[in-house]
Formats: sequence, structure tokens, C-alpha cells
Amino acid sequence: MDAEEFRRKGKEMIDYVADYLENIEQRPVYPDVEPGYLRQLIPTEAPEDPEPYDDVLKDVERVIMPGVTHWHSPNFFAYFPTGNSYPSLLADMLCGAIGCIGFSWSTASEATLVALLAARCKAVKRVQSTNPELSEPEIYSKLVAYTSEQAHSSVERAGLIGGIMMKKIPTDYNYSLRGALLKKMIKEDKAAGLVPFYLCATLGTTSCCSFDNLMELGPICNEENMWMHVDAAYAGSSFICPEFRPLLNGIEFADSFNFNPHKWLLINFDCSSMWVKKRADIIGAFKVEPFYLKHDNQESGESTLNLNKLLHWQIPLGRRFRSLKMWFVFRTFGIKQMQAHIRKQVALAKEFESLVRADKRFEICAEVVLGLVCFRIKGSNELNQTLLKRITKNRQIHLVPCQLSGRFVLRFCICARSTESHHVHKAWQHITQLAFELLQEHIN
Amino acid sequence: MDAEEFRRKGKEMIDYVADYLENIEQRPVYPDVEPGYLRQLIPTEAPEDPEPYDDVLKDVERVIMPGVTHWHSPNFFAYFPTGNSYPSLLADMLCGAIGCIGFSWSTASEATLVALLAARCKAVKRVQSTNPELSEPEIYSKLVAYTSEQAHSSVERAGLIGGIMMKKIPTDYNYSLRGALLKKMIKEDKAAGLVPFYLCATLGTTSCCSFDNLMELGPICNEENMWMHVDAAYAGSSFICPEFRPLLNGIEFADSFNFNPHKWLLINFDCSSMWVKKRADIIGAFKVEPFYLKHDNQESGESTLNLNKLLHWQIPLGRRFRSLKMWFVFRTFGIKQMQAHIRKQVALAKEFESLVRADKRFEICAEVVLGLVCFRIKGSNELNQTLLKRITKNRQIHLVPCQLSGRFVLRFCICARSTESHHVHKAWQHITQLAFELLQEHIN
Repeated sequence: MDAEEFRRKGKEMIDYVADYLENIEQRPVYPDVEPGYLRQLIPTEAPEDPEPYDDVLKDVERVIMPGVTHWHSPNFFAYFPTGNSYPSLLADMLCGAIGCIGFSWSTASEATLVALLAARCKAVKRVQSTNPELSEPEIYSKLVAYTSEQAHSSVERAGLIGGIMMKKIPTDYNYSLRGALLKKMIKEDKAAGLVPFYLCATLGTTSCCSFDNLMELGPICNEENMWMHVDAAYAGSSFICPEFRPLLNGIEFADSFNFNPHKWLLINFDCSSMWVKKRADIIGAFKVEPFYLKHDNQESGESTLNLNKLLHWQIPLGRRFRSLKMWFVFRTFGIKQMQAHIRKQVALAKEFESLVRADKRFEICAEVVLGLVCFRIKGSNELNQTLLKRITKNRQIHLVPCQLSGRFVLRFCICARSTESHHVHKAWQHITQLAFELLQEHIN
Repeated sequence: MDAEEFRRKGKEMIDYVADYLENIEQRPVYPDVEPGYLRQLIPTEAPEDPEPYDDVLKDVERVIMPGVTHWHSPNFFAYFPTGNSYPSLLADMLCGAIGCIGFSWSTASEATLVALLAARCKAVKRVQSTNPELSEPEIYSKLVAYTSEQAHSSVERAGLIGGIMMKKIPTDYNYSLRGALLKKMIKEDKAAGLVPFYLCATLGTTSCCSFDNLMELGPICNEENMWMHVDAAYAGSSFICPEFRPLLNGIEFADSFNFNPHKWLLINFDCSSMWVKKRADIIGAFKVEPFYLKHDNQESGESTLNLNKLLHWQIPLGRRFRSLKMWFVFRTFGIKQMQAHIRKQVALAKEFESLVRADKRFEICAEVVLGLVCFRIKGSNELNQTLLKRITKNRQIHLVPCQLSGRFVLRFCICARSTESHHVHKAWQHITQLAFELLQEHIN
């Protein structure tokens, strides 16, 4: 394909993308295929000679689309949103064309891990300053990290990867991690000869969008010389609205903070951002400086942001030029429109909450703070599991479950930018219809 | 921006991208800005109200482009190639529009780490089967991993992250890691009570594209129950040509293998692929299964590739739908054209090698196997450092250095798809002109 053909095919692709997004509602949100369906549809080897580009494009509908879960469908209420907007798509096109290897962040999971590794490095230095005879692995075996039992699975994984003990602390009735229990745990662990060094607190948990109490946890971490990492992967985007800022109270105690603009800030996947209080802590944990990455500008001091050093801040060496799409989106939307987007989605969630509350057969299972509603039929876990199975089987809407206090709960999250009030009402009608049938069967 | 505006602006962007790539040679390959230049050109805050998209686009040239290193310029001979092709760009547009969260690999650095973590997990189980009293951190402190002194910095970093001792083994005169030295190291370490568990061998090192001797290393690793990971980040693409396949001899002994299609296989960044001999080894090391990721299809057994399980194979939870661009590229180029691309670039490197060899003031510093030529002026390191500094300052071409046997060496790598014989000749003319001036100064 030469530049001329690219000009033609690229413009067709633009139309295809616009058509896809304008008509996404007409596609079933959840695919009706079994894992492995793709194997039958594609050859086992790459073709020897080029195929016409148009044949490939035709196969997108035949081969790819049947297996796609349409995350931007207005009927997608599962997980959390993944961002999408036209300017972001345009920026990504340019980013691909420039194709330079930039240095930026990947996902919240990586941020959690990076913070843990930096904290581990810092803790080792601290312990060695008073116990110089201890080796690094000996110190690792004494380190203990904490998180809430509601934290994202990636926190536990970060512990596994770093070879560190990660303890999960129970939460209060609001699924919030509180200071008293952390304090108690630290005291017990120190008495047992362990070294508390890291806390991952969450603002907006994946299960039910609960918020750990930074105002209580922060001072404890500071006092105990523990690294406090704050994971606000989903909720972080809401902090562009002043009315949601109080959720961030206590952030001044944190050593690092992360949120994913690719979730809820109109920026398409992937784009995650991390703040670190003292960047020397992060650089120290990762610095391995090969010869071919040394540059003249590398020694230009701490006063200017040194791009060449960013590679010490993460696990992979290279990254796409992701900030380009943030820049496109911030500028073409402006803060007010981005705020309006957040507020609209929160209002839609509240609307769904009212519908649930008005139906006595159902219950709300956690406070609705942002765009996530956790609900269930009053009744057994089995009943709710069956309800979700039927929702999934019907493929009209897409939800995923969570577990709260041992109960099977359905998560209804406002995700797509195109979701409107009538989608929420239709979804609720669909859910109640399925619930009605289910409850009838149980009576009979 | 609505769909109609996206259709218009998208088509303009297609033309901008085509113009950019067609005329990239006219831009200085290396930017003439100081780190921090950007801060003066952009406001400190995002705009309250939307700006016109066209203003943003105008600023791409004013604000962004001056700071860009043009990796696809035919005058870019630094690092290794980063892939680029029109079909790949088109696929990435579609990938962004679908915007689903897929599960795939990121970079070779991550593959190296993932393999190390899987090996660590396997080694712990093995040691615990005979020494059940040992805790995980106690075992970690006895584990030892190996790599060549020529290996990529990410290997050392993987050791740091995993909290594991990583030893660098010297290479032979060809910068290749050999069996005898590995065997000796293992013997000594075992005598000291350590547990050898992992080797990262490289095919095509970053410094000089040397190849570790898998035929010697592989049987040793298998015998010692050590995980052998093979990193062929750059060279891997060349194995689509039968004539380069012998470089892969011994791969049958490996437990895992990685290469980056985004380097040399016409696929734009980022796209990296990894093979694992026993996938249970990888899944075991990463499995943390939260409730909201459980699905009906998850228990469908080992016979079909289970997409839901792929998230256990890596550090971040989500990934872009990267295989789409591989599929576009494989199909629209076909194997023969991809092979032709590799062969052409190897031939260009050989052409540059001949030019260097024909000039008695210069020397070739490592065997030219693929697209990388390591060379220097016969003389001091200072002389070669000054030469590179002047090349960089002139910004006509872009090279980076490496260090071989304590000597400062220049790396000339064929990177851009648009690099032709006349670019190589012009680059050589430029280098010899600067060298001539430099040597004249030294005489005077």
C-alpha cells in the first residue's frame, strides 16, 4: 500500500469508524460465539502473497466483529467505562504515524506495582541503615504491605510479583478501609518482627466504588514511614468536578497517586497517569542505565523535566506517545464539557438507583457515589446468579457481578458516552422482566 | 466533535499523516530543542471551553513537531527500527474505535520479567518439595539467574523487580554467551548453596546484534532444571527468512521466546509476542482471580485457547487489541514482501559495512549479521565520542553509541522502511566528512 492508496483507504476507514460508532447500538453488545470460534475462520498461516486490502476489510465484519464485546455500546454496563472520543481517535492516528517511542504510563496495575517496588527499595535502605548486616532478600522476608479486602486484584498481584507479603484488611459497613484496623494490624505485625512499608488505598473500588478513608490512613502511614499509594483508577476522572473533590481529602498524605484517563475522561485506551511525591524514590528503584540510552541532555539536572529519565520510572522501556490524545481531548472538549460528561453519567447512575429503590423486590447494596450502582434481588445468591446468567445469555445489555459481604451482587455501571436516559430505562425494564419471569418460576 | 465533523477531520488527518510520511525526509531527524522547551509553548492549565479542533491541529506543527525525533526518517540509524506501515496504521485506527480491552503482550522487557517470575514460581515449588520448611522469601534469597554481559538492561531490571540475584556472564570474542562459562558459574554457585533457576539468552543483542549459543546453553539449562528464556526482540523478525533460521538453532531447548514485531516486521509500536512452552507455568505465577472477572467460559478447559485466562499471563490487566494490526500487515504484505523488506535492510547494512571496510581510517567492531553495523574510527574513545557528538549536533542523521570490550563504538542501524541505498551513501559521506575535519584538527 502506497501513500495514495493509504489516502483513499484511510478515508474509507474514517467512514467505517464513524458508521461503527454511530450504529453501535444495533450490534449485540455481547458476542454470541464460543472461545476458539476464530480458529475456524482464519487460515493457519499468513499468506505468501499480499491479499487485496479490501478483502481484509471485508473480513473485519465476517471474522472479527462477531467476537467483539462492544465496550462503547450504550447497552454496555459492565466493569468500568473505557474512554472514547473522536478527537482522541484522531490523536491516536497521528501518534501511530509519528510512531516515536515515548515514555509514559500504562495501566493502574503497573502504577500499583511501580509504587510498591519504589517503596520496597526505600524500606530496604531504611532497614539497612540500622541493620547493615541484613541482605536484601532477608529484608524482603520481613516486609509487609497492606491493602483493603476490596482492593483491585492487581494489588495482590503486585505483592506476588515483588515477592512481598500483602495483607488484606477488612473494611467497614461502607466497604471503606479505616484507620483503627490498619493501626491494629501494624502494631501486631511490628510486635511479630515484621516491617510495615506500604499501603495501597483505593478511591472508588472496582467492586462497589467505595472510598478508603485517607484522612485516617494517611497520618498513620506518614508516622510509620510507610508508602501510601492511592489508586483512583476509575474515580480519579471525577475529581475534575469541584463537587467530587472532597472525595480526595487526605491526598496530601500520599506518596503516589494514580488514575486512568482512559476510563472516564473521554480518552481511548490505553492512557494512565501517575503522580509521585518524590521522584527520586521512583528513579532509585528502577535505575539501570545502559550505554545506548545515554545522551547529552541526561545530566541536565533536576530543574527541568528530563524525558530521558522517564524510562527509569516504569517496567517496559518504551511507550506510545499517549499524551497526544490527552492534549487533543482536553483542548477540543475543554474542562466544562468534560465535567458535564462526568456529571451526566453520575446523574444516569442516580436515575438507575431510583428505579431500583422504587421496586421493593430489589435492594441497593452500596452507596451510589459516582457512575456505579450495585444492586440485587432480595433473595438468595443463586437467584441473583441465575438472573445475571439470563441477562448475559440475552445479550441485550452487559453487566458483571461483584461480591459484597458474601453476597452475589450485580454491578450496573454507566460506561458508554452514548448511553442516555432511555437506555437506562430500557435496561431496567429488561432486568425487571427477566427478574419477573425468574420469580414466577420460583413461585410455581 | 460529532460523527460528521469526525468524518471531515479524519479525512484531513489521513492526508496529514500521508504528507508527513511522504515528506519526512525534509524534517531534521533529531530535534533542535532543549528538554523543557514545551513548557513555554503550552498553557499551564487545560482550557475551560473547547478550542476549535483546527487550532489544535495547527499547534501540532508549532508545538509538538519541533520536539519530535522522527523515527521513520530515512536518516534515522539509531537504536533499532520501530515498525510502520500504512495497513498497520489503518488497523490501529479501527482498534482505537473498537476500543475493547484485549489481552496481549506489551514489550520484550515485560516478557523477560514475566518469564523470570514464572521461573521463580517454578523454582520455589521445586525447592519446597524437598525442603518444605523453607519460606518463599528464604528461597528467593538462594535463587540465582544468569544473562550475558551484553544482554538488554531490562534483564537486569527484571532481576531487580523480582528481588532475585542476576549474574552477568562474560561473552566470547564474538560477544556470544557460551556454554562452558555458564557451566562453570552454575557449578560454583551450587557449591556456594545457591539455586540456579533462570537464564535469559539473547539472539541479536542491542549493542552489536550478537547471538548467544543456544546449542550449548540449552542442554545445560534443561539438565539443571533452569528456565531458558530467549530474547530476540530485534532479530526475531528476520526468522521469517529461511536463510536466517539457523540463527535460531537450539530454540527447542527454550522454555519461552519473545520477539517484537513492532521493531522490524512493519507493525507500528507497540506489539510484542511471546511463546511459552508450558503455559501452565505462566498462569501459575500470575493467577489472582477476582470475582468481577469470572465468566461462564472460563472453565472451558485446556483444549481451546481461553481468552479470559490471558490476563494471568502479564502484569497489566488490560491491553489494546494489538493483534488486529498484525493481521492487517500479514495479509496486505504477505510473507514474501515481508521477507523482501528484511532482506533489503540487511543488504543495506552490508552495503554500509563495505563502505566502512574500504576506508582504512575506520574499523568494523562486530560481525554484521542483520541490519546493524558497529564501527569506529581507529583511535581513542575520545575521538569517537567527539565524532558522535558532532553527528548529533548536525542533526542530519541519528546514531547512538554502544560499548564493546571497553571501546566506544558507533551503531549504524537500518531502521526506516524508506531508507534507500542513496541515504546510506549520503550518511557515510557525512560521517567521513566530519571524521576528516576531526582528524585534521588532531593533526594540527
